[in-house]
Amino acid sequence: MNLAGKDKKHIIHPWSNLGSDAESMIIESGKGVHVFDSEGNKFLDSISGMWCVNLGYGNEEMAQAIADQCVKLAYYTPFGAMTSPPSIQLATELSALTPGDLNCFQFTNSGSTAVESAIRFVHYYFNCLGQPEKKHIIYRENAYHGSTYLAASLNGKRCDRSYFDYVTDIVHATSDPNPFKRPQGMSIEDFCDLRVNELRDKILEIGPDKVACFIAEPIMGSGGVIVPPPGYHKKTLDVCREYDVLYISDEVVTAFGRLGHYFASEEVFGIVPDIITVAKGISSGYQPLGAAIFSQKLVDRISGDSASENSYYTNGFTYSGHPVTCAAALKYLEIMKRDKLTDHVLEVGPYFMERLETLMELPAVGDVRGRCLMACVECVVSDNEDENIAFAQRVDEFCQEKGLIVRPYENLCILSPPLIIEKKHADQIVDILGDSIASTMDEMGYS
Amino acid sequence: MNLAGKDKKHIIHPWSNLGSDAESMIIESGKGVHVFDSEGNKFLDSISGMWCVNLGYGNEEMAQAIADQCVKLAYYTPFGAMTSPPSIQLATELSALTPGDLNCFQFTNSGSTAVESAIRFVHYYFNCLGQPEKKHIIYRENAYHGSTYLAASLNGKRCDRSYFDYVTDIVHATSDPNPFKRPQGMSIEDFCDLRVNELRDKILEIGPDKVACFIAEPIMGSGGVIVPPPGYHKKTLDVCREYDVLYISDEVVTAFGRLGHYFASEEVFGIVPDIITVAKGISSGYQPLGAAIFSQKLVDRISGDSASENSYYTNGFTYSGHPVTCAAALKYLEIMKRDKLTDHVLEVGPYFMERLETLMELPAVGDVRGRCLMACVECVVSDNEDENIAFAQRVDEFCQEKGLIVRPYENLCILSPPLIIEKKHADQIVDILGDSIASTMDEMGYS
Repeated sequence: MNLAGKDKKHIIHPWSNLGSDAESMIIESGKGVHVFDSEGNKFLDSISGMWCVNLGYGNEEMAQAIADQCVKLAYYTPFGAMTSPPSIQLATELSALTPGDLNCFQFTNSGSTAVESAIRFVHYYFNCLGQPEKKHIIYRENAYHGSTYLAASLNGKRCDRSYFDYVTDIVHATSDPNPFKRPQGMSIEDFCDLRVNELRDKILEIGPDKVACFIAEPIMGSGGVIVPPPGYHKKTLDVCREYDVLYISDEVVTAFGRLGHYFASEEVFGIVPDIITVAKGISSGYQPLGAAIFSQKLVDRISGDSASENSYYTNGFTYSGHPVTCAAALKYLEIMKRDKLTDHVLEVGPYFMERLETLMELPAVGDVRGRCLMACVECVVSDNEDENIAFAQRVDEFCQEKGLIVRPYENLCILSPPLIIEKKHADQIVDILGDSIASTMDEMGYS
Repeated sequence: MNLAGKDKKHIIHPWSNLGSDAESMIIESGKGVHVFDSEGNKFLDSISGMWCVNLGYGNEEMAQAIADQCVKLAYYTPFGAMTSPPSIQLATELSALTPGDLNCFQFTNSGSTAVESAIRFVHYYFNCLGQPEKKHIIYRENAYHGSTYLAASLNGKRCDRSYFDYVTDIVHATSDPNPFKRPQGMSIEDFCDLRVNELRDKILEIGPDKVACFIAEPIMGSGGVIVPPPGYHKKTLDVCREYDVLYISDEVVTAFGRLGHYFASEEVFGIVPDIITVAKGISSGYQPLGAAIFSQKLVDRISGDSASENSYYTNGFTYSGHPVTCAAALKYLEIMKRDKLTDHVLEVGPYFMERLETLMELPAVGDVRGRCLMACVECVVSDNEDENIAFAQRVDEFCQEKGLIVRPYENLCILSPPLIIEKKHADQIVDILGDSIASTMDEMGYS
C-alpha cells in the first residue's frame, strides 16, 4: 500500500470527510517559504502550514536549539514545586512583551488547551472569590477557539459543528462584528455600537452575576479574517469591565508577528485584556506549544496571602512547559528580535494587502480584507452559498496547479504566509490567486 | 531575581499550592537515568520525569531524529485532505503492535486531549448511529484521565479536585478495584465480582441506552498504582459488551514498555478494548505526543459507505500528527525494537518488584504493589491520613538528600524509573528508599 493509502486507512484527520474516499495530499519537505509534496512538486506556501510556520521551513537554527535542549534535558515534570529553566526563561522574556501586567503563564501544547486553561482559571478564580454562579461564557458567531469539548463549544461557525456533542449549559453566542455583513445603509460606527450593545444585552439577559468571561479573537481567523470596526474591542472591553466580566483575547493566530507586533491586543487594538491565549506562532510551529497568560492582578487575588484554603491549582498537563518546546520558542523570539521580523512584517504586510486589494477588480471577488500577513479573499458569484463554495474550491485547485497553496474555507481563500516572505513572494501569491480566480470564472461561466 | 524567583513570579504550575511561597526545585540537565539540579546535585530519577522518559535523558539518537525532521519539514497542516509522512509511518507501525483491529489513529499532544478525542469520538459515533441519548461516561474512583474540563471530570481522586468546575451531567463514578482496600475477610475473587457487579449496576441505574462508554487504566497510575484483581478487566469488558458500552483503555502510562509490552491491555490483561488512549511513553517524553486509537470496526460503521450525511469529522488539533513529534516516536520505536527494550523490562522489572517487596518488612510500609517498572510503596503509620501523608513527604525529602527523586503523592511513593535502568539502579532505588523510610520512622518516632 502506498503512503496515501496508509494515511487513509490509519489516520482520522481533523475536519476530514469520513464519507469520502479521496486520498490526501502528502507534504514531505520544505525550505523557506516553499514546501514540496511527495511527487516533488514545489509550492509557495501562503498559509504557513496553518497560521504558524512564521519563520518558514527548514530553519537550521531552530533545529539546532531543539536538538540541544533534547540532549541537555528533554523533559522534567512541571508538577507541584518542580520546574526547568527553558519555561522560566520563556515566561520571563514574554512578560516583557505582553500588554499590561499579563505576566503569569500556564503553558500548554495547543491553542485548544490554552483556551481550556483560560476558562478553567476563570472558574477557579470566581469560585475562590465566593462567586460560584459566575461561570457563563460568551463567545461570538463565526469564532474559532479549539477542539476540546469545552473549547469546541465556543466555535461559532456552523460548518465547525457536526455530529459531536457540545457544552450547552454555560456557553452563549453573540453576533460577530463583520462589517462586510452589516445591514445595508448602516454606517460602520453604528454597526459597531449595535454589536457592542448586543454584548451588553447578552450579559444582562444571562445576568452579570452569572457571566464569567467573554472570549474574542482580535481578528477572527478561520471565521474569515474578520477585522472588527474601529473601537469595537475597546468598547466591548469597557462593557466587560462594567459588569466584572473577564475579557479573554484569543491571540493564537494574531500574536508573534502576524500583525507586525508580538501581541495584537494592545499594539493594534488598544486593549489590555485580562487573559491572552497563544499557540501556533509562539514556536513558529516547530513545536507544539501554547499558553494562557493571566493578569498579575487576577492571580494576586487568589494566591499568596489571598489564597483560599487548600488552594492547590489542580490543572495543567504533563507537557506544560516542556523544555524542548520552550527552547524552540526562545530561539524563535531571539531570531524575531535579531532579524527585526516585526519591522519586516510592517513593511511587507501593507504591501501584500495593497496588492491583494487589486483583486477587488475581479467580479467574483466580494471582499478582500485583513491586515498585514493575515488576509482573506471572499468569493461571491451567486446568492447560493454552495455555488460560492464550489467556486472557491476550484480556485484552490487552480492555485495548486500553478504552484501555490492557499487555504480554502467555504467560499474564502484564507492567506497567512510565512512572516519572512519578500515582496516578490507577495506578488507571486497575488498573481497566481488572481489568475486562478479568472480561470475559474472562465471555466464556470461567471465571466 | 534568580531563576527560582522568576519561576514563582511567572509560572502557574500544575498542582502547585497557590498559597505557598516555597520556591521550586529546578532540574537543569540529565544523562541516562540521572538528572541534575541547578546547584549541580545529581539524582537518580526513579520517576522518568513523570512516567515518560523511558529511554532516559540526553539520548543523542532522539535529538538527531528530532532535528532532522525539523530541517526536513517541521510542520504542515493535518486538516482535511492534507498529511505528512511521519504521522502515516507512525500510525502504520503502531497498527502492527496494537491489540485486535485498533488501527485508526487520531493524534494529539497530550494524554488529556487523547482522552478528550476518545470521548468525543464516542459521542460522534453514537450520534451517527442514531443513538443521541447514549453519551454518559462511567469512570472509576481514584482514576486519573487528564486536565481539560471533560477529562478532569473523569478524575476520581479527591485531591485532584479543587476550586475548578467539572462536567456533572454525563459522568458517573464507580468504585476502584484496589484489592488492598477490600473489605476484611473477603477473598480477592469475591472482591473482583463485587466491583464488576457494581459496574453492571451502575450501567443499569443510568440505563444501558444512555451509557456510551467506560474508561479505565489497566493499572491505575497516580491513583496509587492499583493493580486490579485477576480477571477484573476481562469481566468488566464482558459487562460493557453486554450493554453495547464502549470500553476505553487509558494506556497513557502503561503502554510503550513500562509493563514489558508495547500495550498492556491485551498482553498483560487479556482484553481487546474498543479504544486505547496513549501519550507520555510514546515519544519517551522527548516530544508532546498523544493519540486516541480506535477499532477499525467502529470507524467502519461511521465512514465510507456507512457515513452519515455531511460527515465532516470536525475534531482535531493544529498539531495533530505534528511531524517532529511523530519522528520522535518513530525513533523511540526503532530503539525499543533494536535494543529489545521490552525484554529488558521483563527481566529488570520483576527483579525491581522483588527487591521493593522486601520493604514490606518495615513497619511503616503498608503495601508494596505494582508490576515491572510501575510501582508504589504505601506508607501507613497511623489511622490519620494527614499523618501518613506527612510521613511520606518526609521520606521524599530524605530520598532527595540521598540522591534519589521519588514522586510523593499523598502517602504514596510512586516509582516509575526509566526503562533502561539496570539491576544496580534498582538496588540503589530500593536501598535509598528503605533507608529513608527507616530514617523517617526514627525521626518521627514510629520505630
